[in-house]
Amino acid sequence: MSDPSRRSLLNMIGVVAGSAAMYHAMTELGYAGESNFTGPIKLSPPPPGSSVLILGAGVAGMVAAMELRDAGYQVRVLEYNGRPGGRNWSLYGGDSYTELGGATQHVQFDPGQYINPGPWRLPYHHHAILHYVRRLNVALEPFTQVNFNAYVHSTNHYGGKPQRYRQVQADFHGHVAELLAKCTKQSALDQTVSKEDREILMLALRDWGALNENYEYKKSFVGSMRRGFEVDPGGGINSVPVPSEPSALSDVIQSRLWSAIASGHNYEMQSAIFQPKGGMGMIGKAMGKDLGPLIEYNCKVIDIRQDEKGVTATYVDSRKGGEKRTASAGWCICTIPTPILSQIPMNVGPAMKAAIDQLPYMAALKVGLQFKRRFWEEDEQIYGGHTYTNLPNAQIGYPMWDYFSKGKGVLLGAYTFGRPAYIAASKSPEDRIKDALAHGSQIHPQYMSEFENGVAVAWHRVPWALGCQGTWTDQRREEHYNNLCALDGRIMLANEHASRLPGWQEGSVLSALDAIGRLHARVMKP
Amino acid sequence: MSDPSRRSLLNMIGVVAGSAAMYHAMTELGYAGESNFTGPIKLSPPPPGSSVLILGAGVAGMVAAMELRDAGYQVRVLEYNGRPGGRNWSLYGGDSYTELGGATQHVQFDPGQYINPGPWRLPYHHHAILHYVRRLNVALEPFTQVNFNAYVHSTNHYGGKPQRYRQVQADFHGHVAELLAKCTKQSALDQTVSKEDREILMLALRDWGALNENYEYKKSFVGSMRRGFEVDPGGGINSVPVPSEPSALSDVIQSRLWSAIASGHNYEMQSAIFQPKGGMGMIGKAMGKDLGPLIEYNCKVIDIRQDEKGVTATYVDSRKGGEKRTASAGWCICTIPTPILSQIPMNVGPAMKAAIDQLPYMAALKVGLQFKRRFWEEDEQIYGGHTYTNLPNAQIGYPMWDYFSKGKGVLLGAYTFGRPAYIAASKSPEDRIKDALAHGSQIHPQYMSEFENGVAVAWHRVPWALGCQGTWTDQRREEHYNNLCALDGRIMLANEHASRLPGWQEGSVLSALDAIGRLHARVMKP
Repeated sequence: MSDPSRRSLLNMIGVVAGSAAMYHAMTELGYAGESNFTGPIKLSPPPPGSSVLILGAGVAGMVAAMELRDAGYQVRVLEYNGRPGGRNWSLYGGDSYTELGGATQHVQFDPGQYINPGPWRLPYHHHAILHYVRRLNVALEPFTQVNFNAYVHSTNHYGGKPQRYRQVQADFHGHVAELLAKCTKQSALDQTVSKEDREILMLALRDWGALNENYEYKKSFVGSMRRGFEVDPGGGINSVPVPSEPSALSDVIQSRLWSAIASGHNYEMQSAIFQPKGGMGMIGKAMGKDLGPLIEYNCKVIDIRQDEKGVTATYVDSRKGGEKRTASAGWCICTIPTPILSQIPMNVGPAMKAAIDQLPYMAALKVGLQFKRRFWEEDEQIYGGHTYTNLPNAQIGYPMWDYFSKGKGVLLGAYTFGRPAYIAASKSPEDRIKDALAHGSQIHPQYMSEFENGVAVAWHRVPWALGCQGTWTDQRREEHYNNLCALDGRIMLANEHASRLPGWQEGSVLSALDAIGRLHARVMKP
Repeated sequence: MSDPSRRSLLNMIGVVAGSAAMYHAMTELGYAGESNFTGPIKLSPPPPGSSVLILGAGVAGMVAAMELRDAGYQVRVLEYNGRPGGRNWSLYGGDSYTELGGATQHVQFDPGQYINPGPWRLPYHHHAILHYVRRLNVALEPFTQVNFNAYVHSTNHYGGKPQRYRQVQADFHGHVAELLAKCTKQSALDQTVSKEDREILMLALRDWGALNENYEYKKSFVGSMRRGFEVDPGGGINSVPVPSEPSALSDVIQSRLWSAIASGHNYEMQSAIFQPKGGMGMIGKAMGKDLGPLIEYNCKVIDIRQDEKGVTATYVDSRKGGEKRTASAGWCICTIPTPILSQIPMNVGPAMKAAIDQLPYMAALKVGLQFKRRFWEEDEQIYGGHTYTNLPNAQIGYPMWDYFSKGKGVLLGAYTFGRPAYIAASKSPEDRIKDALAHGSQIHPQYMSEFENGVAVAWHRVPWALGCQGTWTDQRREEHYNNLCALDGRIMLANEHASRLPGWQEGSVLSALDAIGRLHARVMKP
């Protein structure tokens, strides 16, 4: 970390969340994001009177509750919050949110505006969560992951000026294609690639890299058909287009902005990707509605006990504390985030206890900013998608609904993990918003005159989660994962943290389905 | 064309319409697709009584009519069809369409289903057409150009099996990155690239190409995070993912499927890209509504005369022929497609006449197919976007609205230019549909059992256009373009064919704005 260029690279990796580099680094830590859902679960009827207590009405808990209920179990769900969904959560105008430390934010967004503090994307291959979206008739609309006209930005390169994604991508592809074509012509590949393949490779590089007839990436009409023109072609007289000048190889490479270029190529970010109309929270709401009175809200679990006959949870009113109550059932599916669960007395074996205690949740920050007008669309022709920057706000997400509307809009003004998110959590919500404005205004100068109000969720201060998702490493997963997922007496854990898709709702659903499948098998074959 | 591999390549270029290769080839013929719109046009009031006759209520004619009307001109528009829009056109259930030769198709699509026989995309940088979309409050929704889970397909490669776009792209990128990393390590770039840049280039190639720590593109978790897994990661126990095996370099290169990979990188195809909700024809409808009685429908122009005082068009009822009528004005903006216009007597000078006569319109085919269910979504998780194939149907476009709906759906079952489109035009509409079914069923076997009805528009048989767009070459543009656009006495032409964005509505709008600007200048300074 003492080499500045390496530090800069790692910093970029850290802050360009969601980019190829970030994800690359994350996958090496054991994060992934796909699905092995093979179809709706079908549980046989359990013995009469079989009952399950479910702790947590997030996506995992509610999927477990719906399926167990449908199979014939008596189901009761205790939820800390006054709403269903857990991290499946959208913040609208009129909502209030009180974080750890007592700061309360009253969201002032206009009607129709929102942000998703938690998950916000539904990849096409997340079959399990999409199954429930279909089942519950939650309307989806496309999520725009990649926008060629959004920016990639480094304060240290291109004079600190934001670059259009399409330009940096075209220049990176073009230079890579030119270099490889040059090597091919200079016989560097003669030992590796057959003559026939080399000939077709040259055609492919010219086509894909937008090279000229000499296999060079230079100022040209063809190159500008990728990166955009200096002057666009027009209609009638005086309409001849003027090609744009590509950046030099060294500038492209040194900028490290290529780290954002493959962001849309990752399996979870690939087109086509979706979001619920009106906010991700629509899924949680639909599940909550489906379960109705089976969920009891504002229940803070303070103790979990099991014996040979069943499980009893003790809880208090999460708003006022007060009188202790209990809920009992034959079995328990516990979806409480591990940083919370590790603080709740629970008589499970040492292996599960150790697995719970070793699993922290990751720091993350999301800031929503409402502006008087959609200047990113009106002034800069950015309709959805993301800008990536090496500033501490890391990412700007443009709203992917009401495109071209003449009204207001809410940006995702910061989306960070790790160190910048820790720092943000140490500040007041007001200061997090001020920071996001200060950073974002270096990319969009309109920020300062158009800003209206904002909300900032620092996940380490979310009282019921203490972080955004389970933070596994390969080593800790090797040691603890199976113990975390195992049935301990009459208690089974479920959530994204008990899956190999941490941080994804798909992980929560698959974890819940796996957990109830194994629990049911145990019930049926004691 | 005698070399089979070259013929195969050119065939692929020809049929994979909309792909990088196609566009690459098209741009070399002088086609492009961007905009130099700088803001709404503002014309000063003309002398009282100034009048303009506009021939054609397509996008160009209607833009000219709206702006000239707003400036104070007396405007009259004659339109061949019984509807506004021209090639801006959506076909819905209940519509009828009679092509040249007399075949009439009665569209049987269900409510909410449609196809756009003509333009179907609105790129983010087509500022001029988007200005009118905003002005007329036409609602837009995202168009999905690239879908990583759609297919690329060659009957001659990969055993003829459709490949997922994401797999071929990941493999192409991975092999290119590995080859260039190998050359870099073997000092092939030492003379071209500085040592510092080479080091960063290696990092970039590993990141972008999803290479392993040895800079190889091999079966790996990281590679599968691009191309997808053999077994996806899951939840709970038994959830370990199994990486997938990349294709060999030679297979990827030989398949030529890379020609489809850059399709979404072209300036007009880049994300974010839009379509009007309910069909492209919504723009034409909105313009027609705005102009109201200024447009006279079912008027077939058969003669255009100008003298020192004005222009007179003679027309008959396009449905019944019959009595000749005339319409006169001081000036004329003529947007009639050149293959039609070249057949209409008109006293313009030899330069404009030659320019009109030399400009044929391109052959094109679009086939819409309604199916009982959205099997591409339900069975194959393809939500919007396109499949590219070397079969004569060239392309399958999946509907980009009502995603995840449980009802029916209409596919774009064929989209071809050139030779396959000529061949299709020689067949009956029924046979074009049969062909599209036969081709598409090689990719989607569900076609045959799920098909309900279809419609096929072969543009060379569209009576009022005789092709889909003006077909320029660089040489003919050099010789004739300015003559086509010049004011000839009191007649000015406008349309996409009088722009440097042929085939795009943006070209029509920019052409119209340029034409009325120059016409107005002439009116103001006689």
